[in-house]
Amino acid sequence: MSEMATKIFEESLNKVVLVQLKGGKTIRGKLYSFDQHMNLVMEDAEDITESENAKKLGTLVVRGDNVVLISPPPNR
Amino acid sequence: MSEMATKIFEESLNKVVLVQLKGGKTIRGKLYSFDQHMNLVMEDAEDITESENAKKLGTLVVRGDNVVLISPPPNR
Amino acid sequence: MSEMATKIFEESLNKVVLVQLKGGKTIRGKLYSFDQHMNLVMEDAEDITESENAKKLGTLVVRGDNVVLISPPPNR
Amino acid sequence: MSEMATKIFEESLNKVVLVQLKGGKTIRGKLYSFDQHMNLVMEDAEDITESENAKKLGTLVVRGDNVVLISPPPNR
Amino acid sequence: MSEMATKIFEESLNKVVLVQLKGGKTIRGKLYSFDQHMNLVMEDAEDITESENAKKLGTLVVRGDNVVLISPPPNR
Amino acid sequence: MSEMATKIFEESLNKVVLVQLKGGKTIRGKLYSFDQHMNLVMEDAEDITESENAKKLGTLVVRGDNVVLISPPPNR
Amino acid sequence: MSEMATKIFEESLNKVVLVQLKGGKTIRGKLYSFDQHMNLVMEDAEDITESENAKKLGTLVVRGDNVVLISPPPNR
Repeated sequence: MSEMATKIFEESLNKVVLVQLKGGKTIRGKLYSFDQHMNLVMEDAEDITESENAKKLGTLVVRGDNVVLISPPPNR
Repeated sequence: MSEMATKIFEESLNKVVLVQLKGGKTIRGKLYSFDQHMNLVMEDAEDITESENAKKLGTLVVRGDNVVLISPPPNR
Repeated sequence: MSEMATKIFEESLNKVVLVQLKGGKTIRGKLYSFDQHMNLVMEDAEDITESENAKKLGTLVVRGDNVVLISPPPNR
Repeated sequence: MSEMATKIFEESLNKVVLVQLKGGKTIRGKLYSFDQHMNLVMEDAEDITESENAKKLGTLVVRGDNVVLISPPPNR
Repeated sequence: MSEMATKIFEESLNKVVLVQLKGGKTIRGKLYSFDQHMNLVMEDAEDITESENAKKLGTLVVRGDNVVLISPPPNR
Repeated sequence: MSEMATKIFEESLNKVVLVQLKGGKTIRGKLYSFDQHMNLVMEDAEDITESENAKKLGTLVVRGDNVVLISPPPNR
Repeated sequence: MSEMATKIFEESLNKVVLVQLKGGKTIRGKLYSFDQHMNLVMEDAEDITESENAKKLGTLVVRGDNVVLISPPPNR
């Protein structure tokens, strides 16, 4: 990751982020940890792919190669 | 994997985890072993993709490159 | 593969295993050989994707990168 | 990236670019940072896949392996 | 490939094999040559994906990364 | 790239080429730069996937792993 | 490529070959050049995916990772 991407990940730790995955899934949850492959640990995560039908997932480890994009909280 | 992801995997050993795979399959079972590629050994596993029609699979080896996300048990 | 995954493969040699492949195919047959990429040699294999219409395939070499999961025989 | 591609990325910093992703998504936003894998940081980004229904995403980190093409602003 | 897989390939040289490819195509033909990536040369090959409508292809070079599985002749 | 492929790319610089991408998109535009991964910079590019509905894209950077084939101008 | 595959490619130079690509496209044209990744240069190429509606493409560079199989001319 570029230094700037790493900085954004670091600023997002313990904040709620939106993660879009290959295949169309969208996950929202607190970013707890990441590495340079974008492997993520999230907490209090929900699958919000169908916005009117969120599914609670709790703690999650996401394999980085599935990540399309990550959106940090708006007011960083 | 980040140190934190490894810690979560280690804490989940011998506990029931949820694994979502590329292609849409969801597996629930006891995590018996893992490696740094997220190759997994699971026991008492079930394919719960169709929640009303779980299929018992018993012991499983999952090839890590199929893993999208892993969710450890809620009360770790 | 983790040591544990290798152990399960070794214990499954010459026993009937279930192999699920990317794309949705399921193969059942005797595991004759494997390597660390999960390339497999199977014997007396059948394509049981459509359970009511099994197709005999005999001896098979499966390219490991197609493997999603492998399930050893229940009573190992 | 070729020297020319890098030059175009550099000239596009802090300008609005269009990014097309694998799977069909189109993102428009200010390019804030990039690296040689085309990992991108964007700001004030919107998902404009459905042009009549843009979704505000704010700051984004895009994993480079999802990028199909990037179009810098017309008047560079 | 494992030693055993290589042995099966070697025993299948100049014999008719069945090759299933990613995307669902099935090719039948004489195995003329192979390498460790499963790149194959086949002769008198036919595309038998639609069994009632085989298409003659003659000599073929198959790029190994497309191979799902290979089935040697039944009476080896 | 083979020496011949590189030669064709070089001869096509500043000429209009047709680029077909994975997923079915076709881009037409002036080839401005390329590298050995087939990362491309194009100018005055149009998305001509739907031939009766070309979309102007202007300058483009195409990530090489999306390229299926490139067709230089007919009269080189 | 195996020595045999390379030999078939060499014998096919300047002859008409059939190339099947991932995604289902079929190209017919004169093989002008190749490298060990199966990157190809073709001349007088046509997209014959829809056999009753061939599209002339002229000279082509095909990125090798898209190739499924190549069929040299019948009477080599």
